[in-house]
Formats: sequence, C-alpha cells, structure tokens
Amino acid sequence: MKQIIIDMDHVMADITAHYINWYKERTGVEVDRSALIGKNEVAAFPESEMVRNFLYTPDFFRTAPVMEGSQQVIKQLHKYHQVFIVSAAMEFPQSLKEKYDWLEENFPFLSWKQFVLCGDKRVIKGDYMIDDHLKNLDFFDGEKLLFSSPHNMLIEGYTRVNNWQDVADILLTNEMITEAKTLDTVEG
Amino acid sequence: MKQIIIDMDHVMADITAHYINWYKERTGVEVDRSALIGKNEVAAFPESEMVRNFLYTPDFFRTAPVMEGSQQVIKQLHKYHQVFIVSAAMEFPQSLKEKYDWLEENFPFLSWKQFVLCGDKRVIKGDYMIDDHLKNLDFFDGEKLLFSSPHNMLIEGYTRVNNWQDVADILLTNEMITEAKTLDTVEG
Repeated sequence: MKQIIIDMDHVMADITAHYINWYKERTGVEVDRSALIGKNEVAAFPESEMVRNFLYTPDFFRTAPVMEGSQQVIKQLHKYHQVFIVSAAMEFPQSLKEKYDWLEENFPFLSWKQFVLCGDKRVIKGDYMIDDHLKNLDFFDGEKLLFSSPHNMLIEGYTRVNNWQDVADILLTNEMITEAKTLDTVEG
Repeated sequence: MKQIIIDMDHVMADITAHYINWYKERTGVEVDRSALIGKNEVAAFPESEMVRNFLYTPDFFRTAPVMEGSQQVIKQLHKYHQVFIVSAAMEFPQSLKEKYDWLEENFPFLSWKQFVLCGDKRVIKGDYMIDDHLKNLDFFDGEKLLFSSPHNMLIEGYTRVNNWQDVADILLTNEMITEAKTLDTVEG
C-alpha cells in the first residue's frame, strides 16, 4: 500500500476543457486545444484576463468536468492504496467549499479525511505525487508523475502519464485490476 | 530555517475559552476550565451534544478568540523560519472559508500560501509540528511539540509546550528575538 497524492485541476478535473467551454460561451471563439500546447494555461487565450477572472468566479470550480477515466482508476487506487486529494486552492478562497462539494459529488467513494486544500504543496509527503505542475512536483520527496496537460507538453525529464490508464499501468497490478472488477460485479 | 507546522484549534485559537463562552451564553452555566482536564474536549461538558453542534454552527470558527501570545511569537517565527498553518478542518466544510478569513484577520502578516486545510495530517511533512492532538503528532516525522490544552494534560511522554513563550524558547534564539524587536521598532 502506497500513499498517493493526487492533484485536482488538470488531473481529476478537465480545467482545459472548462476554460475552452467558458471562453466560447462568453466570446463565441472556440480555442483549439492544440493552440494551448506549451503555453501558460491562462495566457494562451486571446483575452487572457477574462480567463484569469474565471478562476475567481463563483461556480467555476464547482462545475468543472471530470477528467476521463479518473473516477474508475481512483476508485481502484483507493481500494489498494492510501489516496489523498491535494489541491492548491487557497489562492481562490471561494473555491474551497466548491472543491469539497465537487469531490463529494464526483468521487463519493472518497472521504473528507482524504481531502487537502492548501496554498503550497511543499508541506506534502507521500510515495507518489500525480500533478501537472513542476512547482508542486519539484518539492516532493517521493516518485513524481507529471500528468500531461497542454501547458506542460514541452517539458522533458519527468516520468509522464498521458491519461488515467497510464496511471493505472504504473500503480495497479493485473491482480488488483482483476480483483477490483470482481468486487465491482459483487457490489453491483 | 526550519519548516514549522502549526495547528489552529487549541493552539492559535483558544477553542476551550470559546466553548466555555458559547456554552455559558446558551445555558447560563459556566464550566470551569479545570473541570475539562484530561477529558475529551467536547464530552466533558454536561450537555456535550450542544457543544458538538457548535462545531457545525456558522461563525463558530470565525469568532474564536486568539490564543494569548500566538500572534507575537508566530510573527517572529515567520521571520526566521518557514511557517505553515495546518488545520484538520475538512470534517466541517462550512469552516473552510471561516478559517481562511480568521487567519487573514488575526495573522495578516501570513500569506494564503502558508495555509493548509485538510482532513488528516498524515500527509504533512516538516521539521516541527506544534499540535494539541496525538492523532496528528504521531504520524509526523519531525520534532513533535504537544501544545498544552485541558484535554491533553494527562498525557505523558511528549515534549510539551504550555504556552507560546515555551514555543519561542525552543524555536527562537536570543539573537532572533533581539533582532525582531529592533525590526519592529524600525518598522513602527
């Protein structure tokens, strides 16, 4: 059993898709995901100040779409490891309760005991950290898994996971996956 | 420079005094602090269910009195060390924003980057942890300082700090204290 630290934004929540959707609703302009590659996640949008303001807007974090595959894989990780969800949310205090509610809705198998909302992740310890930002991974003493996101695609030198299947391949054995499927069938 | 992890309730916030005040306002009964020694902090009150409910009541955490000496000593610690405020607040999601606001009001020299609100402190690393609960200290790899509170007064075998002066004596050198006083004079 390993202690696994999982980031929210761009890892459990598809914040890039959320930016693109909110931006299109407000400007009519559909920014292509490929246009964001290697760029600061906010500054890459033509009207970047608008996107920056999304982060302070009530309901932005509460309504973020769930990252594909995250629910299934985290459910399995939670069965065999000690999972903690750690989000650097403190810059946006309105997001604290929203992130709690979002986790409760979308990851109901987790407990509040597994949630951490902080300002800086240099206080966090564990065996693995899954995160899209080097500012978080670089202070971590355990294994670092860089979760791919348009803004970090040009970074080299880190163990990269491109999606949740990649995470499962590293942190779940075939026996765990088979057993989890059996348990799911039994539990219905 | 050390990384110092500081708890909020019963360490920065005088929750015992707050319980006693709120209880007196609602029942007319003044519970003496000495009657709480060695007992569970909530169960020690005659109508303990009422006190338990305080924890879920809006404004309870927002209006807690500041622990004597904590502002002065933490201000000095912040000058010479890397301070993080870590509170197990997640059981009471209404408290998340209240704790943020309380810290901003009473410890304005700290930044949101130094705040951590979590469910369980076993993910936290640092050089020192100042806390009133063994459930937090026991998972910590660094030096543990048990901050005295009525509920923990019968516990033995830990390095105990009875007040913020005791913390200063351990974590601040005479040179730091003298320099901090000089800086305060210069800063006005």
